[in-house]
Amino acid sequence: MGGDHGPAVTIPAALAFAESEPEAELILVGPEAVLSLELEKLKASHHPRLRIVNATEVVTMEDTLEVALRRKRDSSMRVAISLIKDGRADACVSAGNTGALMAISRYVLKTIPGVDRPAICSLMPNQKDRPTYMLDLGANVDCEPQHLHQFALMGSALVSAMEGKSRPTVGLLNVGEEDIKGNDLVKQTALLLRADHEKGTLNFYGNVEGDDIFKGTTDIVVCDGFVGNVTLKASEGLGRFVKSVLTSELKSGPLNMLGAIIARGALKKISQRLNPSRYNGGSLLGLRGLVFKSHGGADAYGYQWAIRRAFDAAKNDLISRISVKMTDFMPQPLIAVEADRMIATEDIEHKTA
Amino acid sequence: MGGDHGPAVTIPAALAFAESEPEAELILVGPEAVLSLELEKLKASHHPRLRIVNATEVVTMEDTLEVALRRKRDSSMRVAISLIKDGRADACVSAGNTGALMAISRYVLKTIPGVDRPAICSLMPNQKDRPTYMLDLGANVDCEPQHLHQFALMGSALVSAMEGKSRPTVGLLNVGEEDIKGNDLVKQTALLLRADHEKGTLNFYGNVEGDDIFKGTTDIVVCDGFVGNVTLKASEGLGRFVKSVLTSELKSGPLNMLGAIIARGALKKISQRLNPSRYNGGSLLGLRGLVFKSHGGADAYGYQWAIRRAFDAAKNDLISRISVKMTDFMPQPLIAVEADRMIATEDIEHKTA
Repeated sequence: MGGDHGPAVTIPAALAFAESEPEAELILVGPEAVLSLELEKLKASHHPRLRIVNATEVVTMEDTLEVALRRKRDSSMRVAISLIKDGRADACVSAGNTGALMAISRYVLKTIPGVDRPAICSLMPNQKDRPTYMLDLGANVDCEPQHLHQFALMGSALVSAMEGKSRPTVGLLNVGEEDIKGNDLVKQTALLLRADHEKGTLNFYGNVEGDDIFKGTTDIVVCDGFVGNVTLKASEGLGRFVKSVLTSELKSGPLNMLGAIIARGALKKISQRLNPSRYNGGSLLGLRGLVFKSHGGADAYGYQWAIRRAFDAAKNDLISRISVKMTDFMPQPLIAVEADRMIATEDIEHKTA
Repeated sequence: MGGDHGPAVTIPAALAFAESEPEAELILVGPEAVLSLELEKLKASHHPRLRIVNATEVVTMEDTLEVALRRKRDSSMRVAISLIKDGRADACVSAGNTGALMAISRYVLKTIPGVDRPAICSLMPNQKDRPTYMLDLGANVDCEPQHLHQFALMGSALVSAMEGKSRPTVGLLNVGEEDIKGNDLVKQTALLLRADHEKGTLNFYGNVEGDDIFKGTTDIVVCDGFVGNVTLKASEGLGRFVKSVLTSELKSGPLNMLGAIIARGALKKISQRLNPSRYNGGSLLGLRGLVFKSHGGADAYGYQWAIRRAFDAAKNDLISRISVKMTDFMPQPLIAVEADRMIATEDIEHKTA
């Protein structure tokens, strides 16, 4: 139900994804009448791998966390996340209110043992034409070194699961490459990451700078949620600015338009390579269940990418991978307690025990 | 002497600027033999408004602050900055090592009363095709609210001087527009800025997000040096990435090249509008003298812009404007003490007393 376009985007995307991925089963969560109508329009009311679960309420972009969490108990967001907790779904995808999605996910699913705070990890394009995974993008605006350390471990597990890399590289976002550079937070974090590197549990590259995100210097870039959010939004803003300059100039006058038509092959490839849709689908990492966040403004093509990422994460058992990473990192007695508790309880946790 | 290209860029730029600005007198600082040779090449050895001041050493990009400050006492950077202190120059422009430039400037010139820490302010392009002034860009990686407050006041004085705006708008860089968003630093800073807004000493717009930099929502965007540096470098990196994609695709195959030739008018305007050279020339704000920093990789056209900004700042008496702003902000008894001291001492301070 979420995002700028709601079911007009999410349902065609779900249908297209189901067609492209014969193993996928999709559950559409929201007011049944609205969703049925949308499926009818697409002549997909009887699709064997698409079904509806009813939810009577919808969290809006304006809703406070209080409203989203306490009052709208039958929201599509809450119901969808509860399907994961109940073992009826392997992952959840939403284009809705990020703050509400994180708060409800955290409340319903809880965090993986060893994770103090979940983080949001998104993908950025780079010159190597493969994604740079960056976290945290805004869930945690005030961080301690151990939080960034946990983000590095979770990001590492994510890239292993999604890109099939056994030892993805981790860069720590800083104002310079040298060890002496940076604020206290990054200096202390670097010590933790370097210790892990020496133990072999993390492939720590060292400090990276803002431009390294787009160079693709490392697979993962770790930062606090304030820096990450500002950088992400600044990049989106610059992207829109560049696009508006390109479009307005290439449409100014018949000669430029003719040239653009002749070079349309190049312009199409430029548009594809710079299309943020390909990088859509951030993950809420550190929860005991897979929750993926689509950009609110994503079109059906972009939303399909978010579903693809959720599907791949489930298929490659991301939760187990993160749990194992965090186990390395937890004090030993705590692991035993947690392991007992996890075996005893929920289905989703069996995999991770 | 500084930057990637040294006198091969700075001297042609100085010459071109002198030609374009009949009021300007330029002093070239560095090893005399090197500079003379460069002037000879350009047939400008006897230019009436270009002269050389000798300095036997050069600060390199690799020099530590210790080397730059203590050992190379006759560096071109140190000599140029000392010319300001001695009242023999109105402003200094350098494309060299930023850290060294800041350290030497601070040591030689000292800060304006009321300024705890100088900041680096740079210009970013935006959709309104006028610059967004952003500070701090890296001089202060750990900031307290009063530092951001001072940056806002200094940035406001800068934009008044450079753009002729009497009440430029100030935005506080944050992860959301709402007051409740952000980390402790920005929340506390917002209180200080709002109080100034109510007094009428600052035109505080409120919180802005990363994309507002490129939308041009406010004239000034204030942030700590860590966030500012990462955002600046990420933007530069994204810019280079986009440029490489455009260039490689438009050169791939004869049809695309033909289209690019036909639409060359548009491509030229795109290149102009997105050319970072137009925004070259950051200022080291808060010092008792004007020091401007060119991007190290700037070409002669870009370096001319940095000289232009330094010239405009001197002409519009930026130091006085900042001093007045900071006076408003200082505790009253301190002002009297400072005023006495300033009147009694240096020439440069007469203007500000």
